[in-house]
Amino acid sequence: MLKIGDKTFQSRLMLGTGKYPSFEIQKEAVEASGAEILTFAVRRMNIYEPSQPNFLEMLDLSKYTLLPNTAGAKTAEEAVRIAKLAKASGLCDMIKVEVIGDDKTLLPDPIETLKASEMLLEEGFIVLPYTSDDVVLAKKLEELGVHAIMPGASPIGSGQGIVNPLNLSFIIEQANIPVIVDAGIGSPADCALAMEMGADGILLNTAVSGAKDPVKMAKAMKLAIEAGRLGYEAGRIPKKRYAQASSPTEGMLTT
Amino acid sequence: MLKIGDKTFQSRLMLGTGKYPSFEIQKEAVEASGAEILTFAVRRMNIYEPSQPNFLEMLDLSKYTLLPNTAGAKTAEEAVRIAKLAKASGLCDMIKVEVIGDDKTLLPDPIETLKASEMLLEEGFIVLPYTSDDVVLAKKLEELGVHAIMPGASPIGSGQGIVNPLNLSFIIEQANIPVIVDAGIGSPADCALAMEMGADGILLNTAVSGAKDPVKMAKAMKLAIEAGRLGYEAGRIPKKRYAQASSPTEGMLTT
Amino acid sequence: MLKIGDKTFQSRLMLGTGKYPSFEIQKEAVEASGAEILTFAVRRMNIYEPSQPNFLEMLDLSKYTLLPNTAGAKTAEEAVRIAKLAKASGLCDMIKVEVIGDDKTLLPDPIETLKASEMLLEEGFIVLPYTSDDVVLAKKLEELGVHAIMPGASPIGSGQGIVNPLNLSFIIEQANIPVIVDAGIGSPADCALAMEMGADGILLNTAVSGAKDPVKMAKAMKLAIEAGRLGYEAGRIPKKRYAQASSPTEGMLTT
Amino acid sequence: MLKIGDKTFQSRLMLGTGKYPSFEIQKEAVEASGAEILTFAVRRMNIYEPSQPNFLEMLDLSKYTLLPNTAGAKTAEEAVRIAKLAKASGLCDMIKVEVIGDDKTLLPDPIETLKASEMLLEEGFIVLPYTSDDVVLAKKLEELGVHAIMPGASPIGSGQGIVNPLNLSFIIEQANIPVIVDAGIGSPADCALAMEMGADGILLNTAVSGAKDPVKMAKAMKLAIEAGRLGYEAGRIPKKRYAQASSPTEGMLTT
Repeated sequence: MLKIGDKTFQSRLMLGTGKYPSFEIQKEAVEASGAEILTFAVRRMNIYEPSQPNFLEMLDLSKYTLLPNTAGAKTAEEAVRIAKLAKASGLCDMIKVEVIGDDKTLLPDPIETLKASEMLLEEGFIVLPYTSDDVVLAKKLEELGVHAIMPGASPIGSGQGIVNPLNLSFIIEQANIPVIVDAGIGSPADCALAMEMGADGILLNTAVSGAKDPVKMAKAMKLAIEAGRLGYEAGRIPKKRYAQASSPTEGMLTT
Repeated sequence: MLKIGDKTFQSRLMLGTGKYPSFEIQKEAVEASGAEILTFAVRRMNIYEPSQPNFLEMLDLSKYTLLPNTAGAKTAEEAVRIAKLAKASGLCDMIKVEVIGDDKTLLPDPIETLKASEMLLEEGFIVLPYTSDDVVLAKKLEELGVHAIMPGASPIGSGQGIVNPLNLSFIIEQANIPVIVDAGIGSPADCALAMEMGADGILLNTAVSGAKDPVKMAKAMKLAIEAGRLGYEAGRIPKKRYAQASSPTEGMLTT
Repeated sequence: MLKIGDKTFQSRLMLGTGKYPSFEIQKEAVEASGAEILTFAVRRMNIYEPSQPNFLEMLDLSKYTLLPNTAGAKTAEEAVRIAKLAKASGLCDMIKVEVIGDDKTLLPDPIETLKASEMLLEEGFIVLPYTSDDVVLAKKLEELGVHAIMPGASPIGSGQGIVNPLNLSFIIEQANIPVIVDAGIGSPADCALAMEMGADGILLNTAVSGAKDPVKMAKAMKLAIEAGRLGYEAGRIPKKRYAQASSPTEGMLTT
Repeated sequence: MLKIGDKTFQSRLMLGTGKYPSFEIQKEAVEASGAEILTFAVRRMNIYEPSQPNFLEMLDLSKYTLLPNTAGAKTAEEAVRIAKLAKASGLCDMIKVEVIGDDKTLLPDPIETLKASEMLLEEGFIVLPYTSDDVVLAKKLEELGVHAIMPGASPIGSGQGIVNPLNLSFIIEQANIPVIVDAGIGSPADCALAMEMGADGILLNTAVSGAKDPVKMAKAMKLAIEAGRLGYEAGRIPKKRYAQASSPTEGMLTT
């Protein structure tokens, strides 16, 4: 079970809601994924009719926890302003802090992310910052009191998977709060790997919505996350340079 | 569905039966894995009582297809002799050809493997050779008429996963027969990756039997193989160097 | 030529002076490396006799530019205090900012590094911060006015090489100041790779001083850095999935 | 020094002669590379005027050892025929056996390569077979008596570098004859890595002739091979998961 703030979730997958071919496919993919937490950019909301965001129109929102993000923010102040708009809508009390520092890579701004997280914690939000895989920054965010840490695997939507497994493993090792791998995941194997390393969850969007068959990919990701988590719990064999026979060598066939 | 010779299987996982902590755990792991094909070394059989090999004593063998291997053979002739013993037992008509050419790496002997495969095909066996990831050798084995090709991911029991994804992808690309990744798989992520690349199945032993919790790992591997296969069918996103925003950039929040 | 502040250097290798088996080997390794810039921790200086630090006793310091670092600092204030001690010694006007945020990984503290860099720039130092490979942080440091940026390849002394080539390439791509790869380099191939990617220089210590033969390794690193730089300038061939015959196929032998 | 058959060479680089932009650049690149062994496809020779192959027209062939290859051969018999033509020309007594088994990947045919090598050894050639990185095949070739083994790093001309460092390291570990890495090298870092692993030499063509500046790249490769060899001899530091401070921690600055 994944626990964030005072909420618990059976599913370890958070699913983004952007860029699906249609609302029907969005709905089916969400259902196939088993996700209980859905993310979306606050800036896509119609703030005058926030009770059911129109880009989620076919979803029964009572069944999901909504996790809005501050995409579009380039400073802490912008992120805070966006987060407050989301809270005012009454839809959610969790916020994914996303303060982008570079347009080409969409990598996060460490300084503004830290600042925004601090401000939003003071305002009483449940704060989940999207961050680079800077190990010390992750520690500082935890010390600040954020409720989960969301290091990127690689640039948003790039599908490159985990480009720096070492740093991700350091972040997981030091964390006492959930680590949700966010951004860059491309395939089920990437999900399984992150979970085997001990991640607590994964946030996906493009890897599902951009697949040729988003619904089938949603199902694949669900299974991969479960597989990776089980693999983590089951304790994998160590890697060895040379071979180890799988058949006992005693008890040879007597012919 | 996996089709080998004239048999079809729902599961794409073949499970080895060696080195489990106990028969109880072996049985539970086999069941958790969903495997329909079980492998074992012929040399472990008691040829005077072959109807129920004693190292499979708790399994209801009527529920499984048995795939014996010729482990221990260092020449084609030895492999053929071992295969014939297996066939004489009446337990099976499929044989995994395993002719080892090096004691430290347990890597297969390409020449003897090709020769053994040819001889066993002439004898009417359903032949599945364990081979290196030599691309041209894989093609030659297919031309010979083998029923599936089993390239190793890395040395047997090493848990290193797929050390040469390029060659494996070439083998899959050229093959018109099932490609079963055999040897070296260490974790669910390795399984998912092999399946995403288009492998038709995976043979596991040490990665399951040597895990801290073999039964849980068997379940993890089952899910990972399903996830990887679904991911292959669903069509993953391409990898890109730079980021792609997952939220539409039009329709910005007007504040 | 490498240009930092208003100084230019023929060599693109900066060599650390710690942990050599003896002063003789230190001296020989420094000479074999061709390095013109030597680094050392200010805290190792005897501040009452700074004109010739005793751990550099066999070196003719008039031939080198000294680059002291603030190793030992955990806050910006400590780093500034250490830097001022170094400057007071009269040995140097460049400072490598090193503010460690984690004892196990010795990874840098992004916030304190930025702060220390800002303070030292105001004091008129030539500032070269050691930083993680956080892309946006590297940009912020450049905007601050630092004279070179020194992203780590992997943890100090780990010998793991470049664990995140993607981020390093982003940092190089965006930089208008020299990028010196610092920390984690293990071998000549690591040096060549960093330079091929377009790095302007490399700082080494453990990879040389900890080699079985530090003098020979110093020579190897020198050549590798030159090789990598030439390779960068020469423009490598693109990577292709399939083969490209190296012999022209026209003009076949007529037999 | 590299020793093949009864000849010794100072340079560990063998350079291919195909696909240079011009004869002038070919000549300059050869000289910059320091190569003492030049390779070319026999099928490019004019057998009626073999004393100075026209595609090597500007080179003083008395200064080089020529290593013709059997490119174009698809069977052992074809390779033998081509090798005999080369020998009849009087230009050379060494032959690189190249029997291709697949048009798309240009990967070698293990069976025909083994057969051709055996036949050519019987004819008294100095035999250097181009082979895949199949570990057991490499051993068989050595047992046959070949004078060096030439495993491919990746497909010819692909520039992918060493796709399977594990197998290459196994081949090097078991070999008592020179191991020359052939095919697929893309950059100086690839050369340095192969040499650090203990390879005895490297054969290059496309990586030099196809570079934007072939002459500069030839120089880069020369240095990288020397760097890698020195690095191998110097004994690199082990890789560690965590950091190791490069400055001694005792003798702290007393302030």
